[in-house]
Amino acid sequence: MSSPPGDFGLIGLAVMGQNLILNMADHGFTVVAFNRTVSKVDHFLENEAKGKSIVGAHSIEEFVSKLKKPRRMMMLVQAGAAVDAFIESLLKAGAEKGDIIIDGGNSHYPDSNRRTKYLREKGIRFVGTGVSGGEEGARYGPSIMPGGDEEAWPYVKDVLQSISAKSDGEPCCQWVGDEGAGHYVKMVHNGIEYGDMQLICEAYDIMKRGLGMTGKEMGDVFTEWNKGVLDSFLIEITRDILYYNDEDGSPLVEKILDAAGQKGTGKWTAINALDLGMPVTLIGEAVFARCLSSLKAERTRASTLLEGPTPKFEGDRKEFLANLEQALYASKIISYAQGFMLIQNAAKDYSWKLNKPEIALMWRGGCIIRSVFLKDITKAYRSNPDLENLLFDDFFNKAIHKAQPGWRDVVSKGALWGIPTPAFSTALSFYDGYRTKDLPANLLQAQRDYFGAHTFRMKPEAATSDRPEGKDIHVNWTGRGGNVSASTYTA
Amino acid sequence: MSSPPGDFGLIGLAVMGQNLILNMADHGFTVVAFNRTVSKVDHFLENEAKGKSIVGAHSIEEFVSKLKKPRRMMMLVQAGAAVDAFIESLLKAGAEKGDIIIDGGNSHYPDSNRRTKYLREKGIRFVGTGVSGGEEGARYGPSIMPGGDEEAWPYVKDVLQSISAKSDGEPCCQWVGDEGAGHYVKMVHNGIEYGDMQLICEAYDIMKRGLGMTGKEMGDVFTEWNKGVLDSFLIEITRDILYYNDEDGSPLVEKILDAAGQKGTGKWTAINALDLGMPVTLIGEAVFARCLSSLKAERTRASTLLEGPTPKFEGDRKEFLANLEQALYASKIISYAQGFMLIQNAAKDYSWKLNKPEIALMWRGGCIIRSVFLKDITKAYRSNPDLENLLFDDFFNKAIHKAQPGWRDVVSKGALWGIPTPAFSTALSFYDGYRTKDLPANLLQAQRDYFGAHTFRMKPEAATSDRPEGKDIHVNWTGRGGNVSASTYTA
Repeated sequence: MSSPPGDFGLIGLAVMGQNLILNMADHGFTVVAFNRTVSKVDHFLENEAKGKSIVGAHSIEEFVSKLKKPRRMMMLVQAGAAVDAFIESLLKAGAEKGDIIIDGGNSHYPDSNRRTKYLREKGIRFVGTGVSGGEEGARYGPSIMPGGDEEAWPYVKDVLQSISAKSDGEPCCQWVGDEGAGHYVKMVHNGIEYGDMQLICEAYDIMKRGLGMTGKEMGDVFTEWNKGVLDSFLIEITRDILYYNDEDGSPLVEKILDAAGQKGTGKWTAINALDLGMPVTLIGEAVFARCLSSLKAERTRASTLLEGPTPKFEGDRKEFLANLEQALYASKIISYAQGFMLIQNAAKDYSWKLNKPEIALMWRGGCIIRSVFLKDITKAYRSNPDLENLLFDDFFNKAIHKAQPGWRDVVSKGALWGIPTPAFSTALSFYDGYRTKDLPANLLQAQRDYFGAHTFRMKPEAATSDRPEGKDIHVNWTGRGGNVSASTYTA
Repeated sequence: MSSPPGDFGLIGLAVMGQNLILNMADHGFTVVAFNRTVSKVDHFLENEAKGKSIVGAHSIEEFVSKLKKPRRMMMLVQAGAAVDAFIESLLKAGAEKGDIIIDGGNSHYPDSNRRTKYLREKGIRFVGTGVSGGEEGARYGPSIMPGGDEEAWPYVKDVLQSISAKSDGEPCCQWVGDEGAGHYVKMVHNGIEYGDMQLICEAYDIMKRGLGMTGKEMGDVFTEWNKGVLDSFLIEITRDILYYNDEDGSPLVEKILDAAGQKGTGKWTAINALDLGMPVTLIGEAVFARCLSSLKAERTRASTLLEGPTPKFEGDRKEFLANLEQALYASKIISYAQGFMLIQNAAKDYSWKLNKPEIALMWRGGCIIRSVFLKDITKAYRSNPDLENLLFDDFFNKAIHKAQPGWRDVVSKGALWGIPTPAFSTALSFYDGYRTKDLPANLLQAQRDYFGAHTFRMKPEAATSDRPEGKDIHVNWTGRGGNVSASTYTA
């Protein structure tokens, strides 16, 4: 028997899997391809994979036997039970100590935590990696965010970095951290992607319904925006979409059902933010906006029963479009600031070393949220890795100050016109809340103490010897309540 | 041995537990009191409980032995492990088939689902009940929301309904539904409570920083509001709080630290909304606002680095305050509409019969969110139990239409003044999104198909024989991408 040919194995031949294989073959690796529905393997070999260094496997045993040791076996299958099932199949089919199993799907990070530990006990190194870039990214250079068992990194670095996107010569693929850290960072990436998309949708809605612009006119605006601070993949494809006319000569986008799903990584990010107590409001609103969009039938009925104003634009359109650009830019800065606040907190809570400049670098190219903007973020974190908040960096500080008059104009007009701007608005409320030393939560704490004896603390500047800083204080606000505080009952 | 004296037993002598016992004793029941730290039992018997039909127990065995059969044993202890531990103690101490165990703490509803099943197997009937009303409510009539094993209801109805608040003669205590349904409805109640409190805080912030009003002036406004559509417990206590001066003659509230916790039922409600895919945005923002408030040190630093406008009010203050009242009222309508959307969806998802008019009735009196407003909600659902959305009811439909000009004015001014209004704004965005037949999610679906071949569907009115309604369609937007759609890879 000759030695096995395969440098790298990949399971799962949907669009992402196929394109990653083709990408690896282009970079000189011999890839073994397998798919549960085996006919897909043959179809792939006879078509896209023809003439390339790609070998088919028709059983999981054949797949394992065709790989050089230590085997590098990657799955791109549906997150959840399928991943566990394939791991068990690989173990049964002969995966050995020292082999590396890579999950490149959109797994939830706690599953990757668990799988890292489970496989480590068997001497197998697990890598859970985020892969972003859609079909084109997978084919020509995605962003890759690997985490898991750090022992695996030297063995997979060559393949993953060679197929990944490059940004100014640096691969958009770096080791993220322990256990599920790679999938965690991918989750936050996707949450931010939800936010970016929602922001673009709000800008489009304001142009369409607020200014009455045509598809062509809006496409022209996105063309311009793609030359400035908003230069990014999502702005670019929005331009293409708005220019794309159907056979009847009208924009196809207007015929597409406005109902979006949200059962995935965006939702997980919002839940994680709630769990960690971090105000990641923009992603939260973006997820809820998708929920609302999916209630199409109910909205259609509501549209006949609930009234609102008719948008009436007066003034200089060009000037307002410049404000809209600033609103989008400022909201985006807030969203990324919130995302990095979350990552910073997760690193603390989960005891992961998460390297912020390298995360920004990974998102700079290849992935869906790639942009010029992420170059500025990388720069900010490289020049100060301990930067507490993106908004404290000079560049972003100046940018948001410059953007705020336009941003405020757009949010206030949206409210007056009756055009929903949940993401623009929440970003602005966050900015105004974050920069406020004294928020009205003092009243909230007083209310909680009033009705539930939940106690409060004093502001440092108002502390006295009777009521020192840091002490839990209960006041009998009415003279009616008792003096027992609520030690075990928390509303 | 004489027959046991106790009609009802209660474990946990923090403020809520003590007050519920006193309330039961007032209604003629003999109550057996127990607490893990036994000294609390003696202290209670010698003080608050003196001369009343209250009996102490100094061990869990004594507690069980002092109760008439079937025993009715209620816990008011910290949610979580303590509840399970006490259940086990009660089983060991002699709880028998037919006995009833009631958990009156803020347990998470999945725990109550589990406990109902676990105890049913042992022939013991479990009740998980929400209790709201703070210390005064517990003492003189709380809102009580029991769910669990319906067999228990006839045995606990007399005690629970007699101690509960009454609204127009009806007890604010009705059977909610199976398993964790009682705790579920209490959870949503608390989420709504988070929302109501946040809305009041935003109104207060706008009066204080936007209009430069004093505590006394603001107290006067809340006095007036408490006579109108906003008449409610939380408005009433806000009035008291704003009038409450410290020994130096200045309002105590201004000295209270503006950092609120959020690790409880509000967070659970937001997470549940995300899980069920329902856009309960106002509670979401209220929870995030607490998260932001807790970052006090970071905000203090941010306040020196991040600039904003200086609020400058021009115009008629009285008129603006009327707008502010309408903004608060409209936002509140949205919050309750969202809450009932969530409950409606939970009933479907969890196969619970949840009776909307009775839920509104339970919230009408006794609890923290009690208000005149809930009378109107009860009326709306009683006249049409199948009402799809609160906003479709005539009364609320008219109310929100009347409120919207003022609401829009406040949200737009908040944005221009730099005063955060996350809850007012998200409520308005929800209203404007909900009443929109065609949201911009069509663009979002086009983007997802563009970068990830995720497919889209056609609007019914744009469907053709080539592209029929309901079919998943993929378009090659650039001519560059392939024709493979993403069956297993979902961003």
